[in-house]
Amino acid sequence: MATPALVIDEAVVRRNIGRMAAYAAEHGLALRPHAKTHKSLRMARLQLSAGAVGLAAAKVGEAETLAEACDDLLIAYPAVDEPRCRRIAELAREKTIRVAVDSAFAADALATAAREAGSTVGVLVEVDVGFRRTGVQSPQAALALARHLDRTRGVRLDGIMCFPGHVTGPADEQDLSPVAEMLAETLELWSAGGLAAGIVSGGSTPTAYQSHRIPALTEIRPGTYIYNDMNTVAGGHCGVEDCAVRVACTVVSDAVPGKVVIDAGSKALGSDPARTADGGFGRVVEYPEARLVRLSEEHGEVGVTGCERRPALGERVHVIPNHICPCVNLYDQAWLRREDGQWEPMPVDARGRLS
Amino acid sequence: MATPALVIDEAVVRRNIGRMAAYAAEHGLALRPHAKTHKSLRMARLQLSAGAVGLAAAKVGEAETLAEACDDLLIAYPAVDEPRCRRIAELAREKTIRVAVDSAFAADALATAAREAGSTVGVLVEVDVGFRRTGVQSPQAALALARHLDRTRGVRLDGIMCFPGHVTGPADEQDLSPVAEMLAETLELWSAGGLAAGIVSGGSTPTAYQSHRIPALTEIRPGTYIYNDMNTVAGGHCGVEDCAVRVACTVVSDAVPGKVVIDAGSKALGSDPARTADGGFGRVVEYPEARLVRLSEEHGEVGVTGCERRPALGERVHVIPNHICPCVNLYDQAWLRREDGQWEPMPVDARGRLS
Repeated sequence: MATPALVIDEAVVRRNIGRMAAYAAEHGLALRPHAKTHKSLRMARLQLSAGAVGLAAAKVGEAETLAEACDDLLIAYPAVDEPRCRRIAELAREKTIRVAVDSAFAADALATAAREAGSTVGVLVEVDVGFRRTGVQSPQAALALARHLDRTRGVRLDGIMCFPGHVTGPADEQDLSPVAEMLAETLELWSAGGLAAGIVSGGSTPTAYQSHRIPALTEIRPGTYIYNDMNTVAGGHCGVEDCAVRVACTVVSDAVPGKVVIDAGSKALGSDPARTADGGFGRVVEYPEARLVRLSEEHGEVGVTGCERRPALGERVHVIPNHICPCVNLYDQAWLRREDGQWEPMPVDARGRLS
Repeated sequence: MATPALVIDEAVVRRNIGRMAAYAAEHGLALRPHAKTHKSLRMARLQLSAGAVGLAAAKVGEAETLAEACDDLLIAYPAVDEPRCRRIAELAREKTIRVAVDSAFAADALATAAREAGSTVGVLVEVDVGFRRTGVQSPQAALALARHLDRTRGVRLDGIMCFPGHVTGPADEQDLSPVAEMLAETLELWSAGGLAAGIVSGGSTPTAYQSHRIPALTEIRPGTYIYNDMNTVAGGHCGVEDCAVRVACTVVSDAVPGKVVIDAGSKALGSDPARTADGGFGRVVEYPEARLVRLSEEHGEVGVTGCERRPALGERVHVIPNHICPCVNLYDQAWLRREDGQWEPMPVDARGRLS
């Protein structure tokens, strides 16, 4: 195997999938994994076989790729431009497609495209529950947009979406009551206005196992949980042993005192910083005392002064990146270590589907 | 054009290429552009037509791709593992291939592969002139490694490589004398030991136009200069008008007060932080007062409180990223605006050639 290479442990993947599926089933929540993490048809099929009701995607290109494995897709991302809306409307001729919107502008663009394609696109009103990125700002604004959607031909009002991305940290420190209250208030307004929200979709990986504390939710959309990463570990949401993906690297230089260089930099790991005090760019599995202190594009500099035994030139080591989603997106192909111990190449089918 | 899209202005590219070529010619320096920035055969051919002696690459896969356009390649990166050395040795059967090494271990691996392939691989001894990433640590160590290389069959000692990546900042504040001294001392030792360094290769984009202050250099290897980016601008090495590449984006949300969201996040721009006090993730060309304050994978959050006129929902804007090299590596294809004003798709040929 040439390095750097993305290696995936199927046994860990299945355990992660199973755990989340069991939680969702226990609490009567539909599970709609966000496929942006794996971008893989094979992984999507594993999630669907374990009971996922469908998939979420950020970009239309991802949804187009995933449609090969899935009949029920949520594009958890506003689509406002004509080319994107046209592709969504086209996809909706064959599949159940929903889109989250936070403006009448987006809703109208989608509706126009759907009417032209002769299809109907389901819509969820995105409500900002605190992440301050997208989403309407109040229950009243959600009602106003819902009313607009309800009287617009081409779209079908299916419910509400939120993303509690601002809630991180350990489960017992997560304050989810403002999220719960905002959703409850929105539902009450809709109900008084004669509007139903069949779907209330929420749930990031850090909050996923606390979703039962938000009574309004009918569905959750965690993504990272399938693979996990050092940021998930740092947040207290899993252990290192639950990280299913590693980047296999070779030690290519030990010329500079106190460090070794591995052949994985920002083009192989991604350069998202860590959420921990350590601030490194990932964990070197075989050398937990080592610190991945600096990334160039193709060099990873590993401080080894804290290591009793040091990595040798030519040695293979494995890195768990801070953020697995952009890392996976750098690879056309991963290597899957199947449960039977065999290695198999696995395409990252939707890699680079940017629009 | 679906967004996000990588758009390249050929007129700016040609101006950047021409300026560097003129500088190199004026000072009698060979120019060997680092192709990791563009990863494109078309761009490589433009550089070669303008007088570049060859190309540099980080990874063997890049060199394999570029070999279609170029007969003289330097792999400016240590190769220590058998699969990589074998591919290099294979490439060296048809082309002039050189590799920078900083250990006898790497040299021996390359030599073994070359002897098996019946080829000869040129080697440069990498000397650490201060970046503290790779490279032997002293002129004495460089001499010892050179002697080893000189008596090893399969490799040909061609000279010295350095990377002054630690020297940034404006040209008139750059202290290049320690670099010049270390190279001069190394050359003196080699000469006294009967060893010649036909090539002394240096030069990053920030230091490129100061290379004449390092008398030992025979060649420079800038990469970023072909496109430039906000880090090059921030360093005082070019103006915004010299940035040849932008990411075309659509404004997809304006629901949260004080900001708009564009459809380019870390998977479309890369997440390298800026070197400036601003700390944003890039420059929004049409709204220079806007600040790209936060990136999710597919969302770019743009603070617009400082803007007199604000970007509208659905509007197209263009972002110059902080670091163009990892950004380009996210795209299979760019859009080239030719000098005749026509748009043409351009593959990023070596994108994802990681090993």
